Amino acid sequence: MPALVPFVSERETPSCRSATIPRMDEASTARFEAFSDGVFAIAATLLVLEFAVKGPSPTAPPLGNQLLHLWPSYLAYVTSFVTIGIIWMNHHHAVSLMGRTDRTMLFLNILLLLTIAFLPFPTKLVAQFLGHEGERAAALAYTATFVLMSVLYNAWWRYASTGRRLIADGVPDSSLHAISRAFNPGVPMYASVFVVAFFSPLTAVFLTFAIAAFYLPSAALFDR
Amino acid sequence: MPALVPFVSERETPSCRSATIPRMDEASTARFEAFSDGVFAIAATLLVLEFAVKGPSPTAPPLGNQLLHLWPSYLAYVTSFVTIGIIWMNHHHAVSLMGRTDRTMLFLNILLLLTIAFLPFPTKLVAQFLGHEGERAAALAYTATFVLMSVLYNAWWRYASTGRRLIADGVPDSSLHAISRAFNPGVPMYASVFVVAFFSPLTAVFLTFAIAAFYLPSAALFDR
Amino acid sequence: MPALVPFVSERETPSCRSATIPRMDEASTARFEAFSDGVFAIAATLLVLEFAVKGPSPTAPPLGNQLLHLWPSYLAYVTSFVTIGIIWMNHHHAVSLMGRTDRTMLFLNILLLLTIAFLPFPTKLVAQFLGHEGERAAALAYTATFVLMSVLYNAWWRYASTGRRLIADGVPDSSLHAISRAFNPGVPMYASVFVVAFFSPLTAVFLTFAIAAFYLPSAALFDR
Amino acid sequence: MPALVPFVSERETPSCRSATIPRMDEASTARFEAFSDGVFAIAATLLVLEFAVKGPSPTAPPLGNQLLHLWPSYLAYVTSFVTIGIIWMNHHHAVSLMGRTDRTMLFLNILLLLTIAFLPFPTKLVAQFLGHEGERAAALAYTATFVLMSVLYNAWWRYASTGRRLIADGVPDSSLHAISRAFNPGVPMYASVFVVAFFSPLTAVFLTFAIAAFYLPSAALFDR
Repeated sequence: MPALVPFVSERETPSCRSATIPRMDEASTARFEAFSDGVFAIAATLLVLEFAVKGPSPTAPPLGNQLLHLWPSYLAYVTSFVTIGIIWMNHHHAVSLMGRTDRTMLFLNILLLLTIAFLPFPTKLVAQFLGHEGERAAALAYTATFVLMSVLYNAWWRYASTGRRLIADGVPDSSLHAISRAFNPGVPMYASVFVVAFFSPLTAVFLTFAIAAFYLPSAALFDR
Repeated sequence: MPALVPFVSERETPSCRSATIPRMDEASTARFEAFSDGVFAIAATLLVLEFAVKGPSPTAPPLGNQLLHLWPSYLAYVTSFVTIGIIWMNHHHAVSLMGRTDRTMLFLNILLLLTIAFLPFPTKLVAQFLGHEGERAAALAYTATFVLMSVLYNAWWRYASTGRRLIADGVPDSSLHAISRAFNPGVPMYASVFVVAFFSPLTAVFLTFAIAAFYLPSAALFDR
Repeated sequence: MPALVPFVSERETPSCRSATIPRMDEASTARFEAFSDGVFAIAATLLVLEFAVKGPSPTAPPLGNQLLHLWPSYLAYVTSFVTIGIIWMNHHHAVSLMGRTDRTMLFLNILLLLTIAFLPFPTKLVAQFLGHEGERAAALAYTATFVLMSVLYNAWWRYASTGRRLIADGVPDSSLHAISRAFNPGVPMYASVFVVAFFSPLTAVFLTFAIAAFYLPSAALFDR
Repeated sequence: MPALVPFVSERETPSCRSATIPRMDEASTARFEAFSDGVFAIAATLLVLEFAVKGPSPTAPPLGNQLLHLWPSYLAYVTSFVTIGIIWMNHHHAVSLMGRTDRTMLFLNILLLLTIAFLPFPTKLVAQFLGHEGERAAALAYTATFVLMSVLYNAWWRYASTGRRLIADGVPDSSLHAISRAFNPGVPMYASVFVVAFFSPLTAVFLTFAIAAFYLPSAALFDR
């Protein structure tokens, strides 16, 4: 069981310290932040690869028509992009309150990122299958990814905040409670949307969009 | 309505402060800058995925010929790449003048990035369809994306600068006016090009290129 | 033979120094760290592009069935993602102990990154071919990439640490030994898995997953 | 003609200054460095997308055979990856010697990045066509990209260094001469390889690899 050691951000401290005295006692928070930054931005930008049209060829439908029929692609793109963007902002804020990290946290973070980096695939499924045979499976895969993401993200935050396990000393409890309050509705909301996907795939995708448009932004700003 | 709070860049300040005193009053400007950086670079680099040739196979046209006929791809690639590059540089400059952020700004920024990350798709449409059946729809989709981008970018800047809402204290008004002057022609120019696309898709793409080559660079440097 | 010169991190030092006195004596450690950061994050996120389904079309199998049959894709994705994530964290930690770099190190680092950036391809091979004709070749390609990666990563660390060649002055030997102990089992473990792939491709992929899940995380934290 | 203004790195300075006094006199060097970092890393990592095999299907050749016949892909991948990696390291070093930037430099830098971000496409052409009908056109496109890259990179450096136009005050001339000496052979070498591509595409690709393996690494380290 690793000791919980204080850490200082790896990227900034050298400027005010001797470069020849490495920080032996830091854990990996700064490192997993850099990893996280990259994964969030790339996952969001890869979403655009879901868009596809046929042609130009004599047998392809007119491009204008094709672009209008892509509306599930636009809907899924906006939903996933906004969700990733807001999770990223939350993630930075939460990490800024932590003063140390440990082995379990490291692993929870990698699992969370792994789920976020996976999002372009179910997003593409929704884009391709909504309105076609297979739309139920697509919507279930899409909403299941959001359930998994919210479960991991909640576990990530609870592990860090319970008993102030990884929280820096100067952080007031009210800041932690504000974040916890914002996190609490995530899992039940996405779980409900997953259930809805069994009955109406289209409604489930719209609800996922609504969460991104209305719930997440307010949650992103906590009590500030 | 969130209070407008001063912010300091999250990435740099810890080096000269205690790591155990988190900055509770910062808003998300530093965080959305990191997100923006990643999205700009990836969107620009994904543009290369639009290039495609057939073969090698007995039925494919000679590769040399194919490469010459790719000129709409080259044109669309250069236009989109230069536009993203310059918008990124402007974005950094504008953010450097801001001393705080708020909920509305956050959302405008995500919408702006969402549009920029979308650009590889209409760029690919122009590359595939220019000179073929469907070129009008491709050029309309392409120029409409630039219109949307310039509208969002103007809204983004006006929201920040009106009444110096998010501007840091030491910034002279002349700097703001220089940026506003550079921003003003964007929407009418791109809207005109969108109208041109109805009549001549090729001309519209060339005009978009001309804006990237002549208007944007001077706008990028403001009054410096 | 280049002199071993001290380096200071390029990104941080300017904040407390005059910007007009460039650091002439720095070598390229800070620069190859920035390059490394980008490559790790992008390679991990590109893994998602391996996922593919057919349809929607009348002849495609039901999407739900297709998603269940994708289990080799899920397995390969998780294995490769976790491995890249942990190697990245190790890499940052090891570099933080170095006080200088040289020409050989530079080249070893580029070769290591080249192998990591290659990983999405054998990962896709496993995803496509496991359970089909060709699964042996796919598993051999996959495990061979891990062997190459571990050989290069060991060479990278041994070159830096032997005789404290590139290690900063204040670093205690115990820290180096802890890393070396963690590195030692890598090559024999992956080489054994490569041999297993000749006899049972599926077992080899599961063993690679087990290494990512059990061996790497403990190695990632060294003696902390 | 814009005034040549001193710049300080945007990312680091705020930590030791008041956040409310923006740096009005900086030009865009820090900003184009951030853009450059992202583009280099992503272009290098996208190279892996050139690898493709057929199957699994009854009509596809055995996977093992296919992997062996991919050698042009491996060769092109290593050549392009190493070249991008080394150009990136050079780029950082050269920028670290500059104390200001201007409009022309900005544009040269975007053109250089545009060429580097383009490299995955001709790399894929070589991977697909070497040994097939069309290999001459592929090798010409590949080597032409390197010629263009070296011409732009030389122009970029000459513009900055001639008469110390953009060089910071404390930089000794010997450092500039070392870089110029390293840059000088680039254009004639790549131009010769381009000529070779007319007669022997395979030889031209091997020569491009040899330059990446032998010339670039020594050039990357200048006189250090």
